[in-house]
Amino acid sequence: MNSKSKTIRDPIHGDIKLDGLFLELIEAPEIQRLYDIKQLGFAHLVFPGAHHTRLEHSLGVYHMASKAAEQLELDKYEKEIISCAAFLHDIGHGPFSHTLEHILREMLCADHVDLTEKLIFGEHSIFSKKEKEYIQSPSVYEILNNHNIDRKEISDIIRGNTDSKRYLGQLLNSPVDVDQVDYLIRDSYYTGVAYGMIDVERFFQTLLINDNQIAVSKKGVGALENILMARNLMYSSVYFHKTVRIAELMLAKAIELIDEANPYVFFKMTDAEIIGDLKSRGNFQYEIATRLKFRKLFKQAFTKSKSTLDEESNKTIKKLEKLNFRREKEREFEDLLNLPSGHIIIDVPYFELIKAEPRIKQTDIPIVDQNSVKSLDDFTPVAKAITLREIPDWTLMIITDGKYKESVSKNAEKILFN
Amino acid sequence: MNSKSKTIRDPIHGDIKLDGLFLELIEAPEIQRLYDIKQLGFAHLVFPGAHHTRLEHSLGVYHMASKAAEQLELDKYEKEIISCAAFLHDIGHGPFSHTLEHILREMLCADHVDLTEKLIFGEHSIFSKKEKEYIQSPSVYEILNNHNIDRKEISDIIRGNTDSKRYLGQLLNSPVDVDQVDYLIRDSYYTGVAYGMIDVERFFQTLLINDNQIAVSKKGVGALENILMARNLMYSSVYFHKTVRIAELMLAKAIELIDEANPYVFFKMTDAEIIGDLKSRGNFQYEIATRLKFRKLFKQAFTKSKSTLDEESNKTIKKLEKLNFRREKEREFEDLLNLPSGHIIIDVPYFELIKAEPRIKQTDIPIVDQNSVKSLDDFTPVAKAITLREIPDWTLMIITDGKYKESVSKNAEKILFN
Amino acid sequence: MNSKSKTIRDPIHGDIKLDGLFLELIEAPEIQRLYDIKQLGFAHLVFPGAHHTRLEHSLGVYHMASKAAEQLELDKYEKEIISCAAFLHDIGHGPFSHTLEHILREMLCADHVDLTEKLIFGEHSIFSKKEKEYIQSPSVYEILNNHNIDRKEISDIIRGNTDSKRYLGQLLNSPVDVDQVDYLIRDSYYTGVAYGMIDVERFFQTLLINDNQIAVSKKGVGALENILMARNLMYSSVYFHKTVRIAELMLAKAIELIDEANPYVFFKMTDAEIIGDLKSRGNFQYEIATRLKFRKLFKQAFTKSKSTLDEESNKTIKKLEKLNFRREKEREFEDLLNLPSGHIIIDVPYFELIKAEPRIKQTDIPIVDQNSVKSLDDFTPVAKAITLREIPDWTLMIITDGKYKESVSKNAEKILFN
Amino acid sequence: MNSKSKTIRDPIHGDIKLDGLFLELIEAPEIQRLYDIKQLGFAHLVFPGAHHTRLEHSLGVYHMASKAAEQLELDKYEKEIISCAAFLHDIGHGPFSHTLEHILREMLCADHVDLTEKLIFGEHSIFSKKEKEYIQSPSVYEILNNHNIDRKEISDIIRGNTDSKRYLGQLLNSPVDVDQVDYLIRDSYYTGVAYGMIDVERFFQTLLINDNQIAVSKKGVGALENILMARNLMYSSVYFHKTVRIAELMLAKAIELIDEANPYVFFKMTDAEIIGDLKSRGNFQYEIATRLKFRKLFKQAFTKSKSTLDEESNKTIKKLEKLNFRREKEREFEDLLNLPSGHIIIDVPYFELIKAEPRIKQTDIPIVDQNSVKSLDDFTPVAKAITLREIPDWTLMIITDGKYKESVSKNAEKILFN
Repeated sequence: MNSKSKTIRDPIHGDIKLDGLFLELIEAPEIQRLYDIKQLGFAHLVFPGAHHTRLEHSLGVYHMASKAAEQLELDKYEKEIISCAAFLHDIGHGPFSHTLEHILREMLCADHVDLTEKLIFGEHSIFSKKEKEYIQSPSVYEILNNHNIDRKEISDIIRGNTDSKRYLGQLLNSPVDVDQVDYLIRDSYYTGVAYGMIDVERFFQTLLINDNQIAVSKKGVGALENILMARNLMYSSVYFHKTVRIAELMLAKAIELIDEANPYVFFKMTDAEIIGDLKSRGNFQYEIATRLKFRKLFKQAFTKSKSTLDEESNKTIKKLEKLNFRREKEREFEDLLNLPSGHIIIDVPYFELIKAEPRIKQTDIPIVDQNSVKSLDDFTPVAKAITLREIPDWTLMIITDGKYKESVSKNAEKILFN
Repeated sequence: MNSKSKTIRDPIHGDIKLDGLFLELIEAPEIQRLYDIKQLGFAHLVFPGAHHTRLEHSLGVYHMASKAAEQLELDKYEKEIISCAAFLHDIGHGPFSHTLEHILREMLCADHVDLTEKLIFGEHSIFSKKEKEYIQSPSVYEILNNHNIDRKEISDIIRGNTDSKRYLGQLLNSPVDVDQVDYLIRDSYYTGVAYGMIDVERFFQTLLINDNQIAVSKKGVGALENILMARNLMYSSVYFHKTVRIAELMLAKAIELIDEANPYVFFKMTDAEIIGDLKSRGNFQYEIATRLKFRKLFKQAFTKSKSTLDEESNKTIKKLEKLNFRREKEREFEDLLNLPSGHIIIDVPYFELIKAEPRIKQTDIPIVDQNSVKSLDDFTPVAKAITLREIPDWTLMIITDGKYKESVSKNAEKILFN
Repeated sequence: MNSKSKTIRDPIHGDIKLDGLFLELIEAPEIQRLYDIKQLGFAHLVFPGAHHTRLEHSLGVYHMASKAAEQLELDKYEKEIISCAAFLHDIGHGPFSHTLEHILREMLCADHVDLTEKLIFGEHSIFSKKEKEYIQSPSVYEILNNHNIDRKEISDIIRGNTDSKRYLGQLLNSPVDVDQVDYLIRDSYYTGVAYGMIDVERFFQTLLINDNQIAVSKKGVGALENILMARNLMYSSVYFHKTVRIAELMLAKAIELIDEANPYVFFKMTDAEIIGDLKSRGNFQYEIATRLKFRKLFKQAFTKSKSTLDEESNKTIKKLEKLNFRREKEREFEDLLNLPSGHIIIDVPYFELIKAEPRIKQTDIPIVDQNSVKSLDDFTPVAKAITLREIPDWTLMIITDGKYKESVSKNAEKILFN
Repeated sequence: MNSKSKTIRDPIHGDIKLDGLFLELIEAPEIQRLYDIKQLGFAHLVFPGAHHTRLEHSLGVYHMASKAAEQLELDKYEKEIISCAAFLHDIGHGPFSHTLEHILREMLCADHVDLTEKLIFGEHSIFSKKEKEYIQSPSVYEILNNHNIDRKEISDIIRGNTDSKRYLGQLLNSPVDVDQVDYLIRDSYYTGVAYGMIDVERFFQTLLINDNQIAVSKKGVGALENILMARNLMYSSVYFHKTVRIAELMLAKAIELIDEANPYVFFKMTDAEIIGDLKSRGNFQYEIATRLKFRKLFKQAFTKSKSTLDEESNKTIKKLEKLNFRREKEREFEDLLNLPSGHIIIDVPYFELIKAEPRIKQTDIPIVDQNSVKSLDDFTPVAKAITLREIPDWTLMIITDGKYKESVSKNAEKILFN
């Protein structure tokens, strides 16, 4: 009824209300850009409904954070900053979300959280000067400034570094937090894969603060197991689906092979812009952009699963986790088999998985049972077992153009492990 | 379009079509009676939406079985008998489903499956002679007869004893079968507890027959973990919810204390009829019926959880699993504390849980991976871990009228373990 | 987190919180009894999922009323009384909800609202003295008294007679109110008929108070059309489904034919109790109870639809709306065709439909468009058109035992219209 | 189980199976391109979940058409061609679906159906020669050729011109067809606006063929009203939402102002490509692309609703429906108010609405009632009333850059109507 609030319809949470600070933030270019960053990179190539974006996820996490703040009876100030951190936590994401993050890590020792921080502190700009001529809306940095929001505090929450009030950081960064709660239901809704359909209400109901930390009452143990299991199943069936992964590797390779590519420049782009950019460069970049457009993907030519590895191969895989060595091996393949540059990609996914989502191996959630506090593992054997599940089907995979598949397949063992 | 088929709207599976044999079976009194047998006993006292009945579950399992038969490309005959067995598998259920089953087991060494079998073989009747005057529809026994259906085969499938075609029995009786698939989603829908919202489509898609048995392809491992986890969470949060259990124990006690009660007579009744019968008997039976009507339940006065048990108490609990010893102890309580008969009930739930749902401890599902067949446990550590979860919160619970709670609470340890 | 609140899981609205007054009301016997009053009478005979009860609907309307109160920024006191009225508005319902209401109307010139009022004022009791021995929970009357709630005000809201604050009464009694909003979604959910799946969020968002009355902003016109259409479609396909209606008519006839039946006594009963009572009476009452148990219903032997009526038959139908004349005609049939008493029932549904749900013909909802207030009909031609839809398929229907169908069918025209 | 079939998970219809012809079509570049054509143009700027694409809609309509073919018991050949036509019916869509269609219509007297036909006949190519170097998959034209599918027949079904078998064309082109059924549920799902949640099952169940035409049995009247109402409500609240419309008008204007723009070239592009193209052109095109990226939209400066129009203004509006006159008036505004070119846009939406969706005014659906066939309008007054609803809020709207709003607002009446 208030003209100074706005309601946005979200298929997951229903109507989401924005007012005050948040009415301004929703207009900020950093937030609006998220309309064109797909939440799940190339998952739509396998799950055609998965075109949802970081914008709606950001709205959802904002909404969940506000709800958690109410459940935990946080004061007005804390509610505002946790909601604000939730809203902004993904603004540093590059095109296709996590797809290109390892390049950023490799070249600049940075990740999307670092970029988020830079944007919050006004040390980086998400758009070009030329764009700025047409866009008068203040940036996130300016809005926070005008509202006297402590930017350091927002950034600390996003990083999970809130020593004095650990619960604030944990709401957004812990083995089970509102970020995950939103993405599980949301990704489940848009992919149609039911695994992520967790019981959010029960999770919220059992949330509490204990000794300055987020904890869950004993009644919530089932809700936690539900979330941990859901997350793991979504990882193996959606996020690390073989075909989705192949498309991501192809895009990354096209970027890597650009001479003197500046990761900061690429990270500003939207999904559409990076594809357009590749296309305009011709050559291998044009090829990849065209293949992605028409879903003509590389094929799996060689694969190793964990159970088939001996000690020696394990060592090789460890070495392959280093990007340089991996790239060297790829060139070795290309030379020996006479393949055009970029047409062979080696994938050793575990390392990146853990980098991208360290929460997947964590189960140390404090459980409050009457007057004692124990760990989740004291209440159920399932949490630990879940962390031991293998997520991608493969520990090592080599992909290539279909026409080279046979030749790569035949020679892979030899080239890799000798 | 065919006048000889009928469509029934199910909120879970949409329109369910019935024709031929099934058009007659739906009219049979044994099936129609299931309209008044609640699927989840007294769960509606905690989850007010849970009034769904064995009738719609039976329709659902029929539908799922037909779908599985199609997926497995069974021939017309096999499809008909598995669908028929699915439709009939619950007709032997007594009032409030599993609530009174332990009495049947104790007194007649029989369970609802034995009654189902007797009904199929025409050795038992679900209704009284007087009722029969008004009901001309043929019984299940007669219909099967008319259609020349091999009743032994139907009964074998329901029992899971199909040696020559093990997959038929397994479709309805195995660690993961269509019965469970239907009840998980259905119970989830009506209770509003999301845990049971499994990914049915993926389960069906990965189902296959291997070496005469139901198996699942490697792609289906996640779907199986999803189902096993969902089932376990539904057990701890819904089926063995403390308050639901208390209501069930109260009803059972009221039946047990009837002199010369004939379990066969009680098992014919509907939910409404058994409550009406209790009320007409006066005394303790009247009290219990009235309390259940207005939800004035007994209270938990004493409880032991697994982690707090020493060896000695463990032995006592083992002994308490014998109904006679349990009843003896209850009388001891009543005498010592001067309580009216029936007002104290001792519950040791594990034993009954395993009797009612032995599938909960099973994970031996064959997984087909290319050309080899292994067990589910070779692919994931989660399945086994799930079977180790504690389901009810309590290993031992004593309930009583609220006004005796304190006195029972104080004396329980002494009376039970000395 | 507060030990003095309780959360109930509703499949429609999620977790519903109760505290203070409402924690006591939920324990009241008048409310608990609603666990055994089916929301849709016999609809489960056609839609097997439709076993939901007045209890969950009451919780739902309570929840919707609280939400509306927040949206309208009512003060604490008004929020409490509208929520309270919403919670209690259906406690006077007899077994099978509306099924027997016309008998009450005929014999005592009362309806379920009058009984609700009597219960609120403590002038009537929902349970027997004998039951009361076992039930210590205070009645609704006592609870309201203890909390100093103005019972007259509650009753006025339920009746829609709140002259000074018309919006309060209208929230629960107007062409589009929270009672309907809840029952449409709820009935849709449990029957599986999607027609009732209205856009509740938009309705709430556009709700406002104008000139002491409930109104809707122009943006909400679509939401209103959506609700009006949904209601009408649910009436024709669910509430007035032919088979559902037949079961209701059979039950009503069984009650009518009891000598010296006291409607007050019947109205206290639950669904289960009235069926049990009929069974214990033998004869026609036993027959009907048994038929309903096994779904052996009367058949349609004769029917007239609106479009086929001439002026003369219209007059007859008008006369048939009087219960006495209808009963006379039924006896005439029985005598002439030599049918046993009670085996022929004439139905002229429109009259009862309007009595039971007068809101179905109302479209006078004030719409606020900038500064002017107009009627819904000024914005859309659809609302009026919806009120002109025929709801039941028949204007007149005669039902009878299948074996008399032909004879009734042949003679109906003559007996009725001559 | 068959290696020659493939299953795609759709959040709406669940698993959709493809085999034979359809396994090849899904790989065709014309189909794959639809991954990047948003179903609802710019609706995501208002409903952030609405990023779904023509690809999943095409799969959905294919699925619905197959289901209808089964319900109607069409033979194998007819089932294949109706499913094929359904799958291909949207391949001619340009970027952002309907957004630019009026330009095509204006400049080439063609629409997306004409382009679809050209593609089917191999007279047009959806991709550039350079792209083709990397894409070996055969085009739709080649696939149909290889399978000996009569391309004329497919095209006739898509156009609804199937004289000999009118039902085939009508399944895809009639007042209520499978195209609409899919888009209503799908758009409802992704926008979160519940209006489109129609009862599909009932619609299919009542579908039949009568006298060579698609008809619906009397039981289906409610389902039809439900669909017609849903469609109309989705039009007014989503498809013709003011803000969505503004974004569409801005894009169209940017295209119109390109010198010597070739609509065929633009129609080949994807959503991403057309935005990229605009950006690369600089000037007004750059501005619009940037504004759309950051959601800095033009504002409504002037508006007329139907009810406020006198005869004279009506005539002006009729004239404004001609694109040339509209453009002339826009230039008049620019000149008089000294605005930069392209910064004023006049919208008279009705004309385009009817062009884009003529089905919205149609209600002539044959209803089969026993042996007679009548029109839907004989059974319900609602269908006709729905066609009389006003869909856009405005009959005339002028939009402009926020900074010119006041000046345009003040002068509009004078410039337009004098």
